[in-house]
Amino acid sequence: MIFAYLWRKITIMTIKERIEALRSILNQQGVKAFIIPSTDPHMSEYVAPHWEARQWISGFTGSAGTVVITETEAGLWTDSRYFLQAAEQLQGTGIELYKEKLTETPTIAEFLKARLSSGDAVGIDGQVFSLATAKNLKKELSCKGILLRSIADPFSSIWENRPPIPQNPVFILPLQYAGESCQDKVARIREKMQADGIDLCMITALDEIAWVLNLRGNDVHCNPVFISYLLIAPQEVKLYIDERKLTSEVKDYLAGCQVKVAAYHSFIGDVAQNTEGKKVMADPACLNYAIYCGMGEESQLEEQKTYVAAMKAIRNQTEINNLHHVMIKDGVAMVKFLKWLDKEADLYHETEMSVDSQLRAFRSAQADYIGESFDTIAGYGAHGAIVHYEATPETDAPLAPKGFLLLDSGAQYLDGTTDITRTIPLGPLTQEEKEDYTLILKGHIDLAMAVFPERTRGSQLDILARLPIWKRRMNYLHGTGHGVGAFLNVHEGPHSVRMEENPITIEAGMVVTDEPGIYKAGSHGTRTENILLVVPAGEGMFGNYLQFETVTLCPIDKRPIIKELLSKEEINWLNNYHTKVYDLLSPQLDYEERYWLANATSAL
Amino acid sequence: MIFAYLWRKITIMTIKERIEALRSILNQQGVKAFIIPSTDPHMSEYVAPHWEARQWISGFTGSAGTVVITETEAGLWTDSRYFLQAAEQLQGTGIELYKEKLTETPTIAEFLKARLSSGDAVGIDGQVFSLATAKNLKKELSCKGILLRSIADPFSSIWENRPPIPQNPVFILPLQYAGESCQDKVARIREKMQADGIDLCMITALDEIAWVLNLRGNDVHCNPVFISYLLIAPQEVKLYIDERKLTSEVKDYLAGCQVKVAAYHSFIGDVAQNTEGKKVMADPACLNYAIYCGMGEESQLEEQKTYVAAMKAIRNQTEINNLHHVMIKDGVAMVKFLKWLDKEADLYHETEMSVDSQLRAFRSAQADYIGESFDTIAGYGAHGAIVHYEATPETDAPLAPKGFLLLDSGAQYLDGTTDITRTIPLGPLTQEEKEDYTLILKGHIDLAMAVFPERTRGSQLDILARLPIWKRRMNYLHGTGHGVGAFLNVHEGPHSVRMEENPITIEAGMVVTDEPGIYKAGSHGTRTENILLVVPAGEGMFGNYLQFETVTLCPIDKRPIIKELLSKEEINWLNNYHTKVYDLLSPQLDYEERYWLANATSAL
Repeated sequence: MIFAYLWRKITIMTIKERIEALRSILNQQGVKAFIIPSTDPHMSEYVAPHWEARQWISGFTGSAGTVVITETEAGLWTDSRYFLQAAEQLQGTGIELYKEKLTETPTIAEFLKARLSSGDAVGIDGQVFSLATAKNLKKELSCKGILLRSIADPFSSIWENRPPIPQNPVFILPLQYAGESCQDKVARIREKMQADGIDLCMITALDEIAWVLNLRGNDVHCNPVFISYLLIAPQEVKLYIDERKLTSEVKDYLAGCQVKVAAYHSFIGDVAQNTEGKKVMADPACLNYAIYCGMGEESQLEEQKTYVAAMKAIRNQTEINNLHHVMIKDGVAMVKFLKWLDKEADLYHETEMSVDSQLRAFRSAQADYIGESFDTIAGYGAHGAIVHYEATPETDAPLAPKGFLLLDSGAQYLDGTTDITRTIPLGPLTQEEKEDYTLILKGHIDLAMAVFPERTRGSQLDILARLPIWKRRMNYLHGTGHGVGAFLNVHEGPHSVRMEENPITIEAGMVVTDEPGIYKAGSHGTRTENILLVVPAGEGMFGNYLQFETVTLCPIDKRPIIKELLSKEEINWLNNYHTKVYDLLSPQLDYEERYWLANATSAL
Repeated sequence: MIFAYLWRKITIMTIKERIEALRSILNQQGVKAFIIPSTDPHMSEYVAPHWEARQWISGFTGSAGTVVITETEAGLWTDSRYFLQAAEQLQGTGIELYKEKLTETPTIAEFLKARLSSGDAVGIDGQVFSLATAKNLKKELSCKGILLRSIADPFSSIWENRPPIPQNPVFILPLQYAGESCQDKVARIREKMQADGIDLCMITALDEIAWVLNLRGNDVHCNPVFISYLLIAPQEVKLYIDERKLTSEVKDYLAGCQVKVAAYHSFIGDVAQNTEGKKVMADPACLNYAIYCGMGEESQLEEQKTYVAAMKAIRNQTEINNLHHVMIKDGVAMVKFLKWLDKEADLYHETEMSVDSQLRAFRSAQADYIGESFDTIAGYGAHGAIVHYEATPETDAPLAPKGFLLLDSGAQYLDGTTDITRTIPLGPLTQEEKEDYTLILKGHIDLAMAVFPERTRGSQLDILARLPIWKRRMNYLHGTGHGVGAFLNVHEGPHSVRMEENPITIEAGMVVTDEPGIYKAGSHGTRTENILLVVPAGEGMFGNYLQFETVTLCPIDKRPIIKELLSKEEINWLNNYHTKVYDLLSPQLDYEERYWLANATSAL
């Protein structure tokens, strides 16, 4: 206890010193405030340690959040997933927590407008701001005459022992996994470029580059991507990357694909030269502001999602076959784990972290296992209410035979990426826990059962997962569903299922998660997540219809279910799902596991 | 029959001549095509006959549609409500029907781009195009170098016996109905103008003007509005109107409200003068392009919904009380009608039009009845599948004791506006008719039962009404719900419940219809429509919640219901609704009517 206290005190001191060091640079640069986002020059959701400046300056370790430092104040904006974690981690640092999406919370622009005067400048490092974000911010601040100024990365001079930009080797994803060659993908992109009169396609999102080239890397924790940029012109494809990352095999492969290689840092200069007078396409959400500012003055930027985002989201048949195969492997690992937790583990000797390593052991025994697709969220009891909780040695909670363990985990296999959440009862539950569990399951099933016409958007479907809890005046502030990469990032777009409008329509071949949840601070959390594949549902009035096929294969615990809260249709769905889970997984299991699974998947 | 044939032949000849007359003007003006929308200089949905040029040139009488005339072709674009009607009315005219929202249908811009060349000009009358529409069109055509040119109304020279701009008297809506004085409304608008730094508010939508001034008129069929413009400045309010429409009482009232009066036609000149150097607010969807083009060059236009749209949509307590009162009156008329149709009418001697006049008779006996709020849709059998069918002497179908009568009607009362649809079984039904009826009712109820957090948009709720029929691969292409005025237009915004995104959130005090439908060409149609009032549903997780209170009071026919298709919750809703209908209406009914209603509202 005393150690933790001292450690905490040291952290707080360090953070205050770091903020002061930054303030003196801001003062030299003549900016009154500085904004530090969570991203990298590629607008990645998860970033290499080199770009974890927001964490370095604030001590907040969540994946999403933005710090603002003014001459006298410091604030962190983050979303509901991190409200509890951020409050804990910011204690004593002097950094105020601003809870996003609550009516009383000012936006960062509102916060700045209330504090700065006309003529004042707000600083950003243009490399880690998307064009879209920087433009919006600039516009909002300009109402009050406040300027937005991109300055050089201030952390390069104050961050001691800053981790370097990663240099891990890149490897080839064989065609048996990718399903379409790099040449064919480039040809499809060029066809679209020609149709739209685009001279140059700038691809800056790391997962888009990996997808186009059928290459993978290991530069970002849990994300098999590599730091690079890609330029596609009608006659040339050029990859900007630290050449030390390329083995001779990869170099030969790239040469065979007619992809030239250039230095990573030469991208910004090349863009300045090559865009002059050209019609250039880039995604303003992934293009960083510094590159934009360096573009040729006579260039014409088409700001839209690159073709790649849409192409990548629609799985080809090879990827779909692999997805089903991966789901069997991941399901087998999950069943072995759940049976172990239910029958073999001595809960009094297990913790959140110990069960996570047990699960990892089961997964790593599966063929073509690469690693986790994100840091497991193993939240026991009240920790289950911390939406993106990650157990650390300081917080790691011992389990006990009661209440819920919320377990959100996933793996990277060569043939695909998984993401699954189960809420596991470890023993007796309260009535409230059972109700919450059942209502969330009800919403999960209602979305999974949806049938909808082509051209439907995720924002139209979202309510199906939420309505059962809205009727009890509850909600969750995260999205209901996100795309999942094919051995790529666990979160991918361009589609989504969420309350906010997203004009991208849901199309056959897309995958999307279905993960409603309820989180009650200090008490418990419950979430049930499967991955759904969008499949045709036949022709009908005014066109074709689509539906979801649940591809995740793992029993949903029946013990917490209050049967009366489910409709006959919902119960049928669950029983059919469980039959499918048993049929597909049992051939891979031993007798005892099969016996356990038969019981876990018996009709409700 | 022979008469109808001759009449049709004469119509076709006339339409062809009119198109030729227009073509020769277009030729003189040097434009290659001309677009004729359905609206007036105020972007009204329903227009005075003076502006029914689209109907005059095409013979198509639907409320929505756009005609395009090129040198060799003519086309009508309309939505699914009018597919059948338009196909019938255009027969033989040489005007091609383009069905909107079908994948194979080109938009008007696509149609024009495929036919015209760079340098060609497309003509419009800027007075009957909204700024938003004209801007979009201009942008789209410019991709191919095609120009958009606003020319003077060509119909003034070729339309013989064109009806004049209406000159009906304006009258005052007393405070007991409006609930807020004109002065108070103007004061609220000025507060918002001051906060946003707006110098001038241009109000061009007729219902917005009527709402601000607490005046009503009779210039548009079924819409109690009057042709005018309104300018609100910090020190002045000016109404542009034909002064002959103002009685001395109204003139005194306006003077008392400190509203100045100017000639209708002087608006465009005043705008040119008064907007110079000013920050002007107008709704680009309601401001016509001609006025926009006449604005001062140094003026700054804030294009957004005027404050009035949002203020008007939220009912004050007086309006809510009146709404409930109106619903009792309208419900009593509906019950008297339904009982008459069920028990007294000899169906073999009734037609669509005759039952409509019977319904009108019952309504007109109610206090403060003004007239219909739109032309009744009384569609028997296959006519029920024509979404906005209006029976005419040529189409008027005799009834018979079988199948469905779809009846969508509404009234204007001094204290409010109604809009209700019932699908009435006149005798035996097919299994398909019963299923369609029940599925539509299911969707209607699911939406009516919704509970949702504040800041929810209508596009999120829409699926609740559609999902039951989507699951059977059916859909309807109209919106699920629209706002309804308070003794004003039966369709009003800014909110809606529909598949398309609309950023306006649903707020307490709004009213919205709930009207899913299924339409099977040549067979039958079914739709059930009530008006819902948005009311608070208490505080919950992350804020306040809202729900709907169904305010329409009229039994929903139980005879076609297949009970097994409804959930227990849906059946409960229906039984509770019927109990409320009986409790609130029966005190106003005689013994026989009460007896009939008791049966019609008994538990399912």
